[in-house]
Amino acid sequence: MTQPAATLLIACPDRKGLVALLANFISSHNGNIIHADHHTDFTAGLFLSRLEWQLDDFDLKTEEIAPAFSELVKDLQASWQLYFSHQIQRIAIWVSRQDHCLLDLIWRQRAREINAEIPLIVSNHENLRSIAAQYGIDFEYVPITKDTKAVQEAQQLEILKKYKIDLVVLAKYMQILSKDFTVEFPNIINIHHSFLPAFVGAKPYERAYERGVKIIGATAHYVTPDLDAGPIIEQDVVRVSHRDEVSDLVRKGKDLERIVLARAVRYHLQNRVLVYGNRTVVFA
Amino acid sequence: MTQPAATLLIACPDRKGLVALLANFISSHNGNIIHADHHTDFTAGLFLSRLEWQLDDFDLKTEEIAPAFSELVKDLQASWQLYFSHQIQRIAIWVSRQDHCLLDLIWRQRAREINAEIPLIVSNHENLRSIAAQYGIDFEYVPITKDTKAVQEAQQLEILKKYKIDLVVLAKYMQILSKDFTVEFPNIINIHHSFLPAFVGAKPYERAYERGVKIIGATAHYVTPDLDAGPIIEQDVVRVSHRDEVSDLVRKGKDLERIVLARAVRYHLQNRVLVYGNRTVVFA
Amino acid sequence: MTQPAATLLIACPDRKGLVALLANFISSHNGNIIHADHHTDFTAGLFLSRLEWQLDDFDLKTEEIAPAFSELVKDLQASWQLYFSHQIQRIAIWVSRQDHCLLDLIWRQRAREINAEIPLIVSNHENLRSIAAQYGIDFEYVPITKDTKAVQEAQQLEILKKYKIDLVVLAKYMQILSKDFTVEFPNIINIHHSFLPAFVGAKPYERAYERGVKIIGATAHYVTPDLDAGPIIEQDVVRVSHRDEVSDLVRKGKDLERIVLARAVRYHLQNRVLVYGNRTVVFA
Amino acid sequence: MTQPAATLLIACPDRKGLVALLANFISSHNGNIIHADHHTDFTAGLFLSRLEWQLDDFDLKTEEIAPAFSELVKDLQASWQLYFSHQIQRIAIWVSRQDHCLLDLIWRQRAREINAEIPLIVSNHENLRSIAAQYGIDFEYVPITKDTKAVQEAQQLEILKKYKIDLVVLAKYMQILSKDFTVEFPNIINIHHSFLPAFVGAKPYERAYERGVKIIGATAHYVTPDLDAGPIIEQDVVRVSHRDEVSDLVRKGKDLERIVLARAVRYHLQNRVLVYGNRTVVFA
Repeated sequence: MTQPAATLLIACPDRKGLVALLANFISSHNGNIIHADHHTDFTAGLFLSRLEWQLDDFDLKTEEIAPAFSELVKDLQASWQLYFSHQIQRIAIWVSRQDHCLLDLIWRQRAREINAEIPLIVSNHENLRSIAAQYGIDFEYVPITKDTKAVQEAQQLEILKKYKIDLVVLAKYMQILSKDFTVEFPNIINIHHSFLPAFVGAKPYERAYERGVKIIGATAHYVTPDLDAGPIIEQDVVRVSHRDEVSDLVRKGKDLERIVLARAVRYHLQNRVLVYGNRTVVFA
Repeated sequence: MTQPAATLLIACPDRKGLVALLANFISSHNGNIIHADHHTDFTAGLFLSRLEWQLDDFDLKTEEIAPAFSELVKDLQASWQLYFSHQIQRIAIWVSRQDHCLLDLIWRQRAREINAEIPLIVSNHENLRSIAAQYGIDFEYVPITKDTKAVQEAQQLEILKKYKIDLVVLAKYMQILSKDFTVEFPNIINIHHSFLPAFVGAKPYERAYERGVKIIGATAHYVTPDLDAGPIIEQDVVRVSHRDEVSDLVRKGKDLERIVLARAVRYHLQNRVLVYGNRTVVFA
Repeated sequence: MTQPAATLLIACPDRKGLVALLANFISSHNGNIIHADHHTDFTAGLFLSRLEWQLDDFDLKTEEIAPAFSELVKDLQASWQLYFSHQIQRIAIWVSRQDHCLLDLIWRQRAREINAEIPLIVSNHENLRSIAAQYGIDFEYVPITKDTKAVQEAQQLEILKKYKIDLVVLAKYMQILSKDFTVEFPNIINIHHSFLPAFVGAKPYERAYERGVKIIGATAHYVTPDLDAGPIIEQDVVRVSHRDEVSDLVRKGKDLERIVLARAVRYHLQNRVLVYGNRTVVFA
Repeated sequence: MTQPAATLLIACPDRKGLVALLANFISSHNGNIIHADHHTDFTAGLFLSRLEWQLDDFDLKTEEIAPAFSELVKDLQASWQLYFSHQIQRIAIWVSRQDHCLLDLIWRQRAREINAEIPLIVSNHENLRSIAAQYGIDFEYVPITKDTKAVQEAQQLEILKKYKIDLVVLAKYMQILSKDFTVEFPNIINIHHSFLPAFVGAKPYERAYERGVKIIGATAHYVTPDLDAGPIIEQDVVRVSHRDEVSDLVRKGKDLERIVLARAVRYHLQNRVLVYGNRTVVFA
């Protein structure tokens, strides 16, 4: 599907006629729906939907769609976002010393699995600067210390603005962002190297080893002010045994981290993730 | 959701406005959609959809819905089925000597995981008659020999009619049904003890052992005249190792068979499976 | 393997020559090793081993083996257990109201997947008495209240003695055993309906739903005085989505619980589980 | 474990005393066993074993071990191999146009997950030459046509000799090797992009799509003269749905291919894979 398309994500209190309302809006303007998926959360009483339609014969201009849609749903107490396939998102990848998630994301972007621009790598270490150079990506070194954290985060926010970043991907960035930062820039995906909510925080593989688990996991989630408690996008697991030492958990976990993070970033970039409360609908 | 509901499964050539058309039909008659999922198979050029809506305030009577819908879609070259939640389907479970899938299905029906009546067990052996007795299910013993197969199948078809059976579940029934039978009674789900299309036919565990595979599987599919080649509903797998002998594969496989078959039967009974060509859409 | 066999589980500080020492002991008495697996935990500095050998030509009598072996390893600071295949273990299954794990274990025992006797079911509810009756198993109803817990546990211990129970399986027994009880009778396997250490304690499925996890799990572990913190024997997981409500997690979880518990009980009965510290080696 | 170590893989007809014989050999020469795992294939009547021991205090010199061991097992009809940890194996990676397995293997070697040298990349296309250059690996372009295949394979064999290659890894090399070649150079691991034995040969993803499978897989195996029929080392799978088109299967499959191939290569390099008949024991 390389034709221009629009995607709508919408959540509102459930009532009769919502599917018809949305489909008619698109149909009446001569749009061709190529994906439509609706979910009702009966517990929360919410209607949650994703609609994607082709824009070539659509009789509203791109800039007219949001106002028209806004008028349509003004009485629904809806929260909604509208995305256009020609607006390529810009990602900043944040790393510390480990390169596996970074390389994996770059490979996938080069292989067109991930449709985004990656103009920027940010790190609190210098180790991975050469990778940035190799792939022609700018590299910003922002060391973090307890005393300078506030200043450094302010600087990081400046950099994100300067590069017009839409999404920050924490690809094994081993620093905790402040609440202020996550409020200021809420579009952040993190990969945590455990099966959350098990092993929140530091050293999850060591603690998994000590607990003697038979399976380890990785979790990709949006970052919120609460540590490792944001809405989960994707998780996966791999079996371990008594033969696996901590270093083996780390090794096996790296494969999980790469794949789980890549899936989550891809879902996000395809506008397949609808967050409500602390939950996600992934229209996969 | 215990209110009466209707479910529509529909497949037709893709064109603009189909979601709106379907949603409007339900909305204009005051139905409340509780599940709507649409899929476009771009390769086949087909629109495939499942809609489920509550009937309590619907202003068409049950018997009026199909005629009205038929009129609505008469120009779409559509194939569609309409189901009502108050029409509980009747299952005949066919077995040979193994009891694990049979017991599992009965347990799930008793636990209300599976919403169906099970009035009948058919077998080519006498072994499992006591299970039928224990659960108050009729048991028909129909032995099969090469010479008598045609006669026996005719008898089986009579039994299915007599019991008003909607669905036959081959729960480790180790006989091959004739083409005539499957044409005459097409609603048959089989569990095959391999990861199809690997190991079609007899003795899949023995052949999996000989091939030295590291994973075994089970496959639930609709039965068609071609052996083990019908549309796949569900598959799952389990890891094996060099330590597993054929008897271990059989043991591990039994757990797979139970779960895969139960999922497929449940999807079918909830009218979540849309067959087109030799493929299925499972609106799970 | 239906010939009489002995199994040795041993843990001791690692040093040179241990495999030779153990193998020579068996070989010198004309035993035929049919399974030998050794693991070195380098972190703990421990040698951990399982040896199984046929007894038909073994030139020590059954009752002579332990004394001879004790002499052999007297300087190794070893902890070890010796089991004989002709000593069939006796299981008491403890349940509350849910029957799926109970039925599953009984079925597996009848199908000879689990080699044990099941003379007793204990419950704090009357619901499952009929299942006990149906399979000819004694049923002891021991209701539990806060005030009577100590008295009731004393009674339960009496019952275990009376029935000469080797292993208690908590097959969805929804009461917490006191520390005293677990010290008095340490051979207890529990199935917990979460991927431990996530969701320790009550209502794990509700909490998994609230957290919005994308995968749920089940964990079989030995019971220790610390709630849900004993050595893990086996875990497994299944994927869930936003479409799954709590009742769906419960339903999907039941399949996990059955399978994970059955695997753990089977490993235990085959003397494949070696506990050290809060970890297990499962010689699978 | 960075101390020098030896690893023995041995297969022979089963008889009493084999574990003791092997362990005594090591113990009597003052070796410290760090891994010992034995398997009896009762169907084949074979004893299969892997032993790894530290060499620092071993009182045989490296070059004396094989002759001494040969003398020890001369009456056992054994096939065995002896490996030393200081002998780093040399890998040639063969590719066609796809880079994902190649990049993955190079990254793992750089990250020390894979302990080997990679002096050579061979390809029938020029596409990936730049990757070779980037990592300082020699690149041999050997185009293949029907008419020149014999000549080209002869040239390839020359190159393998010249580079003293121990192991060829076909990392999505889309040509079939001749029988002569595989006999001449038998140490070849291939990644096949299906769950073998399903979809042997060309275009497995297309065929998986057509068959409507719900799970796809990848298989790493040793190459033998029979296409895709050699001993399987490792397999893994991933779930697909009706929403996945062929291009999605390809994308999901790439992750499988990378991981399955990497695991197989790692097992091989750690001398954990014992081939007998058309089966493998993987002492993982």
